[in-house]
Amino acid sequence: MSRATRFSVAVHTLALLERFSDDRPTSEMIATSVGTNASFVRRVLSLLGRAGLVKATAGIAGASLARPAHKITLLEVYRAVSLEGEHRPAIHQEPNPSCFVGRRIQRVLDSVFGAAEAAFEAELQRRTLAHVMRMISAQAA
Amino acid sequence: MSRATRFSVAVHTLALLERFSDDRPTSEMIATSVGTNASFVRRVLSLLGRAGLVKATAGIAGASLARPAHKITLLEVYRAVSLEGEHRPAIHQEPNPSCFVGRRIQRVLDSVFGAAEAAFEAELQRRTLAHVMRMISAQAA
Repeated sequence: MSRATRFSVAVHTLALLERFSDDRPTSEMIATSVGTNASFVRRVLSLLGRAGLVKATAGIAGASLARPAHKITLLEVYRAVSLEGEHRPAIHQEPNPSCFVGRRIQRVLDSVFGAAEAAFEAELQRRTLAHVMRMISAQAA
Repeated sequence: MSRATRFSVAVHTLALLERFSDDRPTSEMIATSVGTNASFVRRVLSLLGRAGLVKATAGIAGASLARPAHKITLLEVYRAVSLEGEHRPAIHQEPNPSCFVGRRIQRVLDSVFGAAEAAFEAELQRRTLAHVMRMISAQAA
């Protein structure tokens, strides 16, 4: 599974940890639900653990949420597994500094793309894992 | 130059067509300012032309804007040169339909990622090429 789906797989993983918390899902169990291999899931769990969103307990198999679902925002999940600026349009790196436009365009684009990315992230900040769980349950009803 | 910079190069190109409209910049002139090759610029110009943002005139070299700069939004530019969903996080394609979460997660993620992408695009919709030109000039002042 490609790195591009990490965020999507991370949300799926956290939803499983919340829904099946009594079972303490292992990477193998999670992989079966996600439709990927356990090593990809372990990589995602490792990044989520480093961000303080999931925890393992020594001597006990499986993982669990480190915080209640309503205290985990999707922006935290996104940042835990994404590269800096991964979903931001790239800026060309060698505009001509002797051109009126070329000398200034990078700063302008950085400002414009940054505002768009901030709006994208603000939407993720407004939603928590608890919202995701309610959306999942609403489909089951 | 990679496809990832197309949006960035497209904005640079349109800024040149506006700033140096009397000169009717050619793809070679644009490439010199952007810091890329003329064939990449021609590809971008072709996409911008197809979207009705720039025009060529038969028998005359170079290109020009098809509309005034304040009537070209950055969202139009973005859509002209990007693939559908190019900057949207990817969703894993084979979650397990026999799992409570796996069966429903794609629809939930599609809704959440769609809202975030819409916020990103709304920021681009609010800005025009005229805004970009003012930001460039402000740096020169």
